[in-house]
Amino acid sequence: MLYNFSAGPAMLPKPVLLEAQRDMLSYDGTSLSVLEMSHRSEPFLSIRNEAEQLVRDLLFVPDDYEVLFLQGGATLQFAMVPMNLAPGGRVDFIETGLWSERAFADAACVSDAHVVASSKADAYQSIPTLPAASDAAYVHLTLNNTLEGTRFTSLPDVAPPLVADASSCLFSEPIDVSRFGLIYAGAQKNIGPAGLTLVIVRKELLRAGSLPSYLRYDLHAKNDSLYNTPPTYSLYLSMLVLRWIKQTGVGRIHTQNKMKAKLLYETLDASNLFHNRVLKKDRSLMNVPFSTGDEERDASFLRYAKEHGLINLEGHRSVGGMRASIYNAMPLDGVEALCAVINRYEKEMS
Amino acid sequence: MLYNFSAGPAMLPKPVLLEAQRDMLSYDGTSLSVLEMSHRSEPFLSIRNEAEQLVRDLLFVPDDYEVLFLQGGATLQFAMVPMNLAPGGRVDFIETGLWSERAFADAACVSDAHVVASSKADAYQSIPTLPAASDAAYVHLTLNNTLEGTRFTSLPDVAPPLVADASSCLFSEPIDVSRFGLIYAGAQKNIGPAGLTLVIVRKELLRAGSLPSYLRYDLHAKNDSLYNTPPTYSLYLSMLVLRWIKQTGVGRIHTQNKMKAKLLYETLDASNLFHNRVLKKDRSLMNVPFSTGDEERDASFLRYAKEHGLINLEGHRSVGGMRASIYNAMPLDGVEALCAVINRYEKEMS
Repeated sequence: MLYNFSAGPAMLPKPVLLEAQRDMLSYDGTSLSVLEMSHRSEPFLSIRNEAEQLVRDLLFVPDDYEVLFLQGGATLQFAMVPMNLAPGGRVDFIETGLWSERAFADAACVSDAHVVASSKADAYQSIPTLPAASDAAYVHLTLNNTLEGTRFTSLPDVAPPLVADASSCLFSEPIDVSRFGLIYAGAQKNIGPAGLTLVIVRKELLRAGSLPSYLRYDLHAKNDSLYNTPPTYSLYLSMLVLRWIKQTGVGRIHTQNKMKAKLLYETLDASNLFHNRVLKKDRSLMNVPFSTGDEERDASFLRYAKEHGLINLEGHRSVGGMRASIYNAMPLDGVEALCAVINRYEKEMS
Repeated sequence: MLYNFSAGPAMLPKPVLLEAQRDMLSYDGTSLSVLEMSHRSEPFLSIRNEAEQLVRDLLFVPDDYEVLFLQGGATLQFAMVPMNLAPGGRVDFIETGLWSERAFADAACVSDAHVVASSKADAYQSIPTLPAASDAAYVHLTLNNTLEGTRFTSLPDVAPPLVADASSCLFSEPIDVSRFGLIYAGAQKNIGPAGLTLVIVRKELLRAGSLPSYLRYDLHAKNDSLYNTPPTYSLYLSMLVLRWIKQTGVGRIHTQNKMKAKLLYETLDASNLFHNRVLKKDRSLMNVPFSTGDEERDASFLRYAKEHGLINLEGHRSVGGMRASIYNAMPLDGVEALCAVINRYEKEMS
């Protein structure tokens, strides 16, 4: 039995994999693989439409928002958001880690981007004090910081629309979509496989610009994300994952996620060997970085964990140490197994 | 038995689907689905590297070219090519159909784009006379025109690098990569599933610009297409398709494709009911549009074909009629079945 703590692409629910396997050569009696379906064929359109409806139902997306299925990951959104919402205009960023730095740097290529709050001086071990005012076109924040293990538990109370990178937390807890002008998320954490990007955007923010077509939200919206060929199989698998989420409900999934995170943080806080340095109130429910403070010891633990079937616990290359990503698909059993291995390793080493 | 003539996403080789199905829950003894693998993990890197090597081997890609695996389809390349190779500069286009029109329109958003040859007046039923000179940064052409059923059989003899949209013909016949500065192709015809875009680009054309990161070829090249999370599963399936192509070889696949196309064109040319209007020397080997010239009769034939297991023969929405896409994965049997149905329908109607 393996438990896969990868930060993304991450583990998927086993029932989803089994269903995809079963239907690989014939989806729903069509004698066609979803992989071979025209994106304009009826069976595929029904997959696309169900995926959109599931996003709307699970997140209570208001009617005045578009749901788009795009490509290029969150990284392409770093460019598309300012290109569409504020070309050349002022945009404000809350800096909370590597991904928000990258989003800012890309926005700065095409707009007048400013960092208005940052926890960089604190090595991103907390969420900074939020701005109380802004006259930018939007204020950007990274809701969950995959690498640093922090998350926002409140939102800035400012006039401009909020834009959120929610790649690593969307569908892991309830979210009030109406507080945002735009939410984007790479699928490969809680939604499905890599290669699909979900964008939820308030319709009034869309305008027809002079951008090349792929970069235009308005064009994707007008064409139900079928202006060009969408990543059909990734969308299909995401639809299956969203169905799986619906069986439990985002509220109950959130409860499970809190339990999993609590167990892991308590284990780390009780340990004399392992530490998580994040300010307690800002700790992520999805990504838990920890280390012994000693590189060789960390490497030894990673080997030990792997021997016990716990894989992909390496921290991001830029920070080292360990990181346990415990997205929706990670069962409580997996976190319990990790806690047991943490405790056993500490005992054996002492 | 179904034969799927979809223009893309199109049919995939059955052995590829069977292998993907078998390995859905555990790839190569890893106990992990490829869908769940970190893009920086060893098994995935080995998939990525094999895919690149297969592209290089099958197309004899010279060493001074980069092979990139991107997202956003050919449509995003319509923007990225001019943004990277000629921001604000002059670029020349050969106009041969809907997709070249779209490529031109997108280039015109970010560069000084000119149409230097066009067969629009001929309803795109032929390839226009090629330009003999150009002082543009590059000359763009659409090697195979999926919708119109034409293809280039010779290349313009001009000084600037050629840039080719090869979405619907790459790997269907040998190609001299060294004649091009850049070749791009959406995967969903001959390479694999939708959601992956292959770019082959001469290294000397890459420059570090001030573009947002996803739009920069140089950044993708420097990071082996792992700057951000690639569409891992699409890349895996494409690797399997490329392995499948290698078993036969591009040269022999080309021979098979010529046989398939010859059979179908001969059947159409011998018919009194069905017609393909494309100039014979410019006929595509991949996409064969045809019609009776009567909308209702076309619809009746499409129903008849479907009853006989031949599906997705509808022409593109913008032109109507029929279109048979006969990519690499379409066996000769499928084309024979189509020809038989064409003949039988004509007989029954006469």
